[in-house]
Amino acid sequence: MLKAAVIGASGYTGAELLRILAGHPEIEVKRATAGRYAGTPVAELFPSLTGVYDGVFEGTAVEGLVEDCDVAFVGLPHGESMKVLPTLVESGAKVVDLSADMRFEDPAEYELHYGTPHSAPSLLADAVYGLPEVNRDKLKGTSLVSNPGCYPTGALLGLYPAARAGVLGSPLIIDAKSGVSGAGRKLTLETHYPQVADGVEPYAVGEHRHRPEISGRLAGLMGESGVEVFFTPHLVPMNRGILSTMYLPLAEGASPEEARALYEDAYSDEPFVSLLPGGSFPGTKPVQGSNNCHVGVEMLSGGMLVVMTAIDNLVKGASGQAVQNMNIMCGLPEETGLTGAGLFP
Amino acid sequence: MLKAAVIGASGYTGAELLRILAGHPEIEVKRATAGRYAGTPVAELFPSLTGVYDGVFEGTAVEGLVEDCDVAFVGLPHGESMKVLPTLVESGAKVVDLSADMRFEDPAEYELHYGTPHSAPSLLADAVYGLPEVNRDKLKGTSLVSNPGCYPTGALLGLYPAARAGVLGSPLIIDAKSGVSGAGRKLTLETHYPQVADGVEPYAVGEHRHRPEISGRLAGLMGESGVEVFFTPHLVPMNRGILSTMYLPLAEGASPEEARALYEDAYSDEPFVSLLPGGSFPGTKPVQGSNNCHVGVEMLSGGMLVVMTAIDNLVKGASGQAVQNMNIMCGLPEETGLTGAGLFP
Amino acid sequence: MLKAAVIGASGYTGAELLRILAGHPEIEVKRATAGRYAGTPVAELFPSLTGVYDGVFEGTAVEGLVEDCDVAFVGLPHGESMKVLPTLVESGAKVVDLSADMRFEDPAEYELHYGTPHSAPSLLADAVYGLPEVNRDKLKGTSLVSNPGCYPTGALLGLYPAARAGVLGSPLIIDAKSGVSGAGRKLTLETHYPQVADGVEPYAVGEHRHRPEISGRLAGLMGESGVEVFFTPHLVPMNRGILSTMYLPLAEGASPEEARALYEDAYSDEPFVSLLPGGSFPGTKPVQGSNNCHVGVEMLSGGMLVVMTAIDNLVKGASGQAVQNMNIMCGLPEETGLTGAGLFP
Amino acid sequence: MLKAAVIGASGYTGAELLRILAGHPEIEVKRATAGRYAGTPVAELFPSLTGVYDGVFEGTAVEGLVEDCDVAFVGLPHGESMKVLPTLVESGAKVVDLSADMRFEDPAEYELHYGTPHSAPSLLADAVYGLPEVNRDKLKGTSLVSNPGCYPTGALLGLYPAARAGVLGSPLIIDAKSGVSGAGRKLTLETHYPQVADGVEPYAVGEHRHRPEISGRLAGLMGESGVEVFFTPHLVPMNRGILSTMYLPLAEGASPEEARALYEDAYSDEPFVSLLPGGSFPGTKPVQGSNNCHVGVEMLSGGMLVVMTAIDNLVKGASGQAVQNMNIMCGLPEETGLTGAGLFP
Repeated sequence: MLKAAVIGASGYTGAELLRILAGHPEIEVKRATAGRYAGTPVAELFPSLTGVYDGVFEGTAVEGLVEDCDVAFVGLPHGESMKVLPTLVESGAKVVDLSADMRFEDPAEYELHYGTPHSAPSLLADAVYGLPEVNRDKLKGTSLVSNPGCYPTGALLGLYPAARAGVLGSPLIIDAKSGVSGAGRKLTLETHYPQVADGVEPYAVGEHRHRPEISGRLAGLMGESGVEVFFTPHLVPMNRGILSTMYLPLAEGASPEEARALYEDAYSDEPFVSLLPGGSFPGTKPVQGSNNCHVGVEMLSGGMLVVMTAIDNLVKGASGQAVQNMNIMCGLPEETGLTGAGLFP
Repeated sequence: MLKAAVIGASGYTGAELLRILAGHPEIEVKRATAGRYAGTPVAELFPSLTGVYDGVFEGTAVEGLVEDCDVAFVGLPHGESMKVLPTLVESGAKVVDLSADMRFEDPAEYELHYGTPHSAPSLLADAVYGLPEVNRDKLKGTSLVSNPGCYPTGALLGLYPAARAGVLGSPLIIDAKSGVSGAGRKLTLETHYPQVADGVEPYAVGEHRHRPEISGRLAGLMGESGVEVFFTPHLVPMNRGILSTMYLPLAEGASPEEARALYEDAYSDEPFVSLLPGGSFPGTKPVQGSNNCHVGVEMLSGGMLVVMTAIDNLVKGASGQAVQNMNIMCGLPEETGLTGAGLFP
Repeated sequence: MLKAAVIGASGYTGAELLRILAGHPEIEVKRATAGRYAGTPVAELFPSLTGVYDGVFEGTAVEGLVEDCDVAFVGLPHGESMKVLPTLVESGAKVVDLSADMRFEDPAEYELHYGTPHSAPSLLADAVYGLPEVNRDKLKGTSLVSNPGCYPTGALLGLYPAARAGVLGSPLIIDAKSGVSGAGRKLTLETHYPQVADGVEPYAVGEHRHRPEISGRLAGLMGESGVEVFFTPHLVPMNRGILSTMYLPLAEGASPEEARALYEDAYSDEPFVSLLPGGSFPGTKPVQGSNNCHVGVEMLSGGMLVVMTAIDNLVKGASGQAVQNMNIMCGLPEETGLTGAGLFP
Repeated sequence: MLKAAVIGASGYTGAELLRILAGHPEIEVKRATAGRYAGTPVAELFPSLTGVYDGVFEGTAVEGLVEDCDVAFVGLPHGESMKVLPTLVESGAKVVDLSADMRFEDPAEYELHYGTPHSAPSLLADAVYGLPEVNRDKLKGTSLVSNPGCYPTGALLGLYPAARAGVLGSPLIIDAKSGVSGAGRKLTLETHYPQVADGVEPYAVGEHRHRPEISGRLAGLMGESGVEVFFTPHLVPMNRGILSTMYLPLAEGASPEEARALYEDAYSDEPFVSLLPGGSFPGTKPVQGSNNCHVGVEMLSGGMLVVMTAIDNLVKGASGQAVQNMNIMCGLPEETGLTGAGLFP
């Protein structure tokens, strides 16, 4: 049984980690930290964990943690995470960082998009971007994983098969619809129930920090950076889920069958990614609460490929993928603790 | 006081007409028909009309109606509407048809998309497409208006300023998000609460009948038909509203200021269309229950103009616009009975 | 045209006042104040008012206001309202106070429930409790109205006919279900979308401040205070609406017909209260956005009368009732500006 | 590995059984039947089961089933279930019936409330009412379990501790709020999204079939039938969950501490029932997707005990409890396959 710490456990991704790990047969949570809630029973903040996880939030000092734990999940805000990562990595623990701090290879780009200098640039070269469907082999040998953002997970899983085949044209349009939990547990007017329920609206048009993460990783996949990416996130009145509707002009005159074959080849053996039958497109409800990604693909006229992916932003888009990455790093079967079906309805 | 009939009043657009007309100082509803509910008090089906409209549904025979009424709103299903329109028009009433039956100028195209031959093709030449912001002058002189579809209303209001300036490039992507009332009062699994609540999904990808309505009317606006239109509707867990997120590659190298100026010119004097301040984009909540359309415009890099429009699908997208058209046809001030603000929250 | 001030206009009841008054033919809003938003266009905070109310929030100083305005609506938080009421009343304006500050006749009781001494106790004797169905005559002669709380409005409209007939037994159970807008625009964890959407929960069990308001006013109606009132509010994932399910053990052996007759007698001529047909009970959707109250009544076995009322908490439960009270005070027809039907669906 | 059949698997309780059993280490589903969907892949109807259960719906003939399966879950509609139960029971399988057909000990009462004569009355004496917290010992020895209704589960878990202590007075008021999945997958106007979203309403006031189930089982618990039960269900715009708010006049002058002690005694060792800390009341969100029941208890003035329970209607209120009962019947640890935490948010 591996002993785990969840560092920064009072947000929704933290609570989701505790939920998932409670059902994981090989990992036991020994510590859950949350500075501002130190001393508070976790189940007081998250009654869903009543009788499931009976621990108390600890303060966020890292030193004590690393001796007791084999693995660590870091759910701190960006900027905070990179302060504790060096100590954790040096301790010999396997670490998954769920913040944005390790998502850019170039510290200057991090500073550009997150507005603060990077304090641990030397770790960037070793951190593996934790999208197992793309980077599985690299993940096996690392001890530091940068867990992708929720939007980039949904987008890149839809773009990857076409991108690695070199058939992606430009411009690429990603119109994404997210549930409100993606904005976190922090109180804002935008996430106040009466402001968001029973309506839909865009936000951060042209400015969302996940756009450079998507285009940067996409350039890595394609070996070049020539594709222009337009990314528009929307807030939908639902708790969980991201539906990414993507419009891919194919550079080459691929037939509908060839385009579909790219996705079949990429995902037929993947445990968590399912290509839906032709003519079907995914919704977010069927993946709710699961680590699954459903993909729909259809070629429209004019060489336009419409690709949609649906994930649960808190599971495949965050905590579930973090556990998947940890399983790979630790040599466990990749699906361990993650096989639950979506909660429907 | 003009006397009105609402023919086919048991759907949501019918109920919405009764709600709006109850507050209209110049039009009085004398008849509301609904074949399957003949004899049922309207307020039994729609308790919201208790104390507001105390009529009883009549059967759908048209003959008796036309003698009593000056104006008629037809909310029958497509295919049914064109059976009664000739009699209504001949009677001398002013008629607004809310069905799809008069939306195509070419009856062959109607048959192609709606799967049934057109039974009143001679009316098509006289019917004016009821988008007042585009066709106001034509509407003044007609006695038959074809009320636009809900999606086409939202889309065309966003495309019109760029289209008439001739700067629209190709392909054009319209990613639309609709509330569930847009699917009507008919029971379907897709609109069963547990199937649709707390999730988002696309439907009719590449196949929706509103796509040819949009591209056909757009070609009319531009004087040519060279733009390829991709239209993807999504079902969002909300009662009302359509948010249309549109990606317009501008054919010419228009500057951001020039692009914005096209929208200011088009809409600065419009009573129901508001261009939001730069950097702002609309949500559906603020227009809920109103005849208003909010528009947001921003030029992104690469000459890509992002335009969003928000309307209430049952008001500006259907019954409110029908009343607006009727006001114009009848020589009433265009805003009569339609000035209510959106219900927020 | 009466000139109005809305003092404390940045909350949901303030926005709702501006929405309703925009459609009121005899009252024009001259001033809308909100200390923390002074200088901000109202439509920036509430885009639903774009093109409907183009004013800018002013600071909250009252002196300048009273010279310009004939009527004033006070939407300040409790404790703040009673600081400005004396000046307003002295100015000769007609005033409706939407806060809790004037809801108790006894200042000691106010202090007991709101935790702060009353600073304007001399006004209490003159303030009329603004439930027109109960106090219409008194309202005609006053210049200061205390607008009832949202829960008390729904509860008292359901209790009044039985209470005034003297047939109410004890204990009385009021199980109320409210939309989230009732908690206001203030950010709290309880009203953060992901915490409240897709679930239901009680709050303030046995402790809500509206319980003593209900029982106090009920005692006034009955001429005694012998009924024990249990009141349990619940938060329902909807924007607007209060459904009050009430269990009334009738003290006397009234027949079902006699019980129903009490409600018919009380409400058959009321413009905003509708008794639904026997066997029907109200939902909140049909009254959404309207000043209407729907009432359902049924005698169950054992002399237990089940009474339910549905209102929109922001309209009949707050701003609509405030305008109704103002109409009465000003000698206008009571329904002026308030006849709109509920927005359904 | 026990082999299981899910008979009548196309409803939400059927899908939920397949979801839960997919994670059950000792039971494997061999057959899922659904007459009208015979031949359809289960994942086509329930995409949430894509990659989780890859079977195809079979027709509902029972004969073939019973030879292959050790255990059977029957999710047929009432009236249909009792047609197949005799064959299943005779086959030697362990059977859990999720319909209402076995819920009354007296067939005359069944006929009274369900409107059809009972066709298998001889089974009634052997069927054990499957509320493990009450009937655990009886469940161990039976091969036929009648799974309780969703409302009775929530209500009886709240009433049981007081009822068995003999302190329950009369009348007893149960005000219940249910998610829409409780009404099943059948299309009705009441569960059409636009009719139910963003509102709350009661239904079946004084007439719901779960009332006699509750009062009948309660009488069994108390050894008498003197308590009058008023039960009012409400439909809340959420997918899952039942919150039962219950008002219990205690017959004896029990102190708050004594009342609470009754609940502590009853539930301190229960795996799925948690008594929340004093002053806390449950919401439905924290139990969503789990087999847990959260209970809150507080004594108000006048000897009125307010008790609330929250369950997921599809899990503890149906399919989860069915699996719990099956575990007990089969001698498996009671929690097997059911330990997942609630999905929050």
